[in-house]
Amino acid sequence: MTEKWRINCKTAAINFAEQRDISCNEQYMINLFRKTETKTWITTSKGYIVPLKENLMSSTKTYAAQEATTPLAPWTIKRRAPKPHDVEIQILYCGVCHSDLHTARNEWGGTIFPCVPGHEIVGKVTAVGDHVKKFKAGDLAGVGCLVDSCRDCDNCKEGLEQYCSNGMVGTYNGKEKDGSGNTYGGYSKSIVVHEDFVLHISDKLPLEAVAPLLCAGITTYSPLRHWKIGKGHKVGILGLGGLGHMGVKLAAAMGAEVTMLSHTASKEADAKRLGAHQFVLTSDAEQVKKVTGNFDFILDIVSADHDYNFYLSLLRTNGVMVCVGAPPSPAQIPAFNLIFGRKSFAGSLIGGLPETQEMLDYCAEHNIVSDVEVIAMKDINEAYERMLKGDVRYRFVIDMATL
Amino acid sequence: MTEKWRINCKTAAINFAEQRDISCNEQYMINLFRKTETKTWITTSKGYIVPLKENLMSSTKTYAAQEATTPLAPWTIKRRAPKPHDVEIQILYCGVCHSDLHTARNEWGGTIFPCVPGHEIVGKVTAVGDHVKKFKAGDLAGVGCLVDSCRDCDNCKEGLEQYCSNGMVGTYNGKEKDGSGNTYGGYSKSIVVHEDFVLHISDKLPLEAVAPLLCAGITTYSPLRHWKIGKGHKVGILGLGGLGHMGVKLAAAMGAEVTMLSHTASKEADAKRLGAHQFVLTSDAEQVKKVTGNFDFILDIVSADHDYNFYLSLLRTNGVMVCVGAPPSPAQIPAFNLIFGRKSFAGSLIGGLPETQEMLDYCAEHNIVSDVEVIAMKDINEAYERMLKGDVRYRFVIDMATL
Repeated sequence: MTEKWRINCKTAAINFAEQRDISCNEQYMINLFRKTETKTWITTSKGYIVPLKENLMSSTKTYAAQEATTPLAPWTIKRRAPKPHDVEIQILYCGVCHSDLHTARNEWGGTIFPCVPGHEIVGKVTAVGDHVKKFKAGDLAGVGCLVDSCRDCDNCKEGLEQYCSNGMVGTYNGKEKDGSGNTYGGYSKSIVVHEDFVLHISDKLPLEAVAPLLCAGITTYSPLRHWKIGKGHKVGILGLGGLGHMGVKLAAAMGAEVTMLSHTASKEADAKRLGAHQFVLTSDAEQVKKVTGNFDFILDIVSADHDYNFYLSLLRTNGVMVCVGAPPSPAQIPAFNLIFGRKSFAGSLIGGLPETQEMLDYCAEHNIVSDVEVIAMKDINEAYERMLKGDVRYRFVIDMATL
Repeated sequence: MTEKWRINCKTAAINFAEQRDISCNEQYMINLFRKTETKTWITTSKGYIVPLKENLMSSTKTYAAQEATTPLAPWTIKRRAPKPHDVEIQILYCGVCHSDLHTARNEWGGTIFPCVPGHEIVGKVTAVGDHVKKFKAGDLAGVGCLVDSCRDCDNCKEGLEQYCSNGMVGTYNGKEKDGSGNTYGGYSKSIVVHEDFVLHISDKLPLEAVAPLLCAGITTYSPLRHWKIGKGHKVGILGLGGLGHMGVKLAAAMGAEVTMLSHTASKEADAKRLGAHQFVLTSDAEQVKKVTGNFDFILDIVSADHDYNFYLSLLRTNGVMVCVGAPPSPAQIPAFNLIFGRKSFAGSLIGGLPETQEMLDYCAEHNIVSDVEVIAMKDINEAYERMLKGDVRYRFVIDMATL
């Protein structure tokens, strides 16, 4: 057996190894490998090297970007058969996140094509592996932005899998830890995910409006919780879009006094309908003056370039501004703008699995969902264009029955 | 009485009004004012308008910068006679802070010349106003970076006078709130300060080595306390100078595991002598690799331009980097560098009065002082040049007996 083959096999191995225990003759396999040149060979838990049976995988319809410049279009992928700890989910709805667009168009670099976006997934469990205890066929289930992590680093052990020191695996554009290939997201009829990364979804809320909680919801919920925002706090929300409208709803539900900061006067009514107590038009100097040095916390959701220093000036002493959006250019902040007032400029990334479940439960309890516009799969490219114009109130969600 | 005169009087009034209660005839005063054209007229607490007696003020020797480009040289100023709540202090030692140099040379802009720097002041009380309860003649006393604030805003009420919403009054280059003029700092034989801004100094420690605690000490103590640094925390100190060496001593005393981050290999022995448990040469990739993602807290003291992102990469998840130095250029930080790892980039300014007293008491209890080089007043200009070269271990302190 050549070393190269060992390596090829090894990278494809862990996946199947847990799945079946097939005895075979190593030399026979080596000969077969040499003949077929296939790379889809794996090692079982007992060390046997076996062919990966293509027929164990299921074909799944998706919408994918084949290149950065092509529109998303139908494409068929293979999903693995559920391993002992896997949950297979029929996807019913998938939210459309701005990250989907960034990745499909390779705007952040590093996109592996073809790319199937989508990480706001809700659906119904169709099959589970033998060892799955938390889910059974027929259950509602959700998948957010990540589908795997090392489970072993300090962050994973604390339930902060999103910060996994060894790299979490994104729901799309990630690389499976077993080397079996890339991950494909929720613009798809089904998905297979380890139960540790599958979330329980309440049946009390409309499913299509729950989907965006898996990214937009947890991304805003997590920093509000981490910085212990609640009654008595003055919170500014900067950016009223998919994330921003969740930020308003969640911060208000937690008891904070919420101010929507926006440069679009027409958003006032909507902001207040969503739960904001106050609206400040940031282009109006008089309105701005009234909230200068005012906020304990600003949740900054804007992913276009903007002047962080202006918003830092709205923080009171000990105030914290947390950005969850990542503009193309670096923030330029004179140290004095933080020194005077002991201010913090921080970042936050989605949320870990325990906190995501906590958020879903919280939303079910407090009747919080996203404001959505349900679209057909074929309309995704048009939806991207509308999203770029901010023409969505406030999240597109794909009805997977249309795929 | 003309309106202009009323205004002139008013701006000079509050000072003297609390000090004396002198009955006089308003019209007489008006006539006198018109004759003399003096502006040194004030209104008493009973509404009387009286001349401010110059002979109530005492002449004090100082060293001052007359312009941004001239060396510091002898200059005589008037200090006010102690008002009922004032403490008059004979200055024994005054530390030399880099801010002194920045201000004397107008490097931050806004310097009012002539300028008498110095805000690390220790000395002996020589006189107190009638209402002073906390001090008596003969007591040791200290004055730090501020000599007044509004006492009325939320920050002042919380003992965070350094963040006074109405503007704290710096010990030098500030403007007295009563309109009586500019403040002059500690490069001086004496100073008169409201008792609220005077600190008790222990007689257990060498006074010359206590002086730098009033700025370098509290500037590093305050963020360590605010972010609750102690046992179990890994702390990086960036920059081994006047503030940095205090940061090392204080963080180690609080029980943290302290790492000195430096690009100067020769500082290792000193850093360890001061209490650092570890030294990382930041130009050595191997050493850096070992501490990447390692620190809970980095205290960044560097006031020259440097790459904040490099140091942010040394923080672990939830890590905080606090800058107390203000480089000329803004920090340029891509949001992703904070988002991944939920990191915070923050600032901190000296400390409030209660915390400064707490720090002085803590240092007396733990036998912590600054490493100082005592100089004569006449050598201040040479000391500035040496400070610019980093040639000081670790704080110059002026012996005021030499003035």
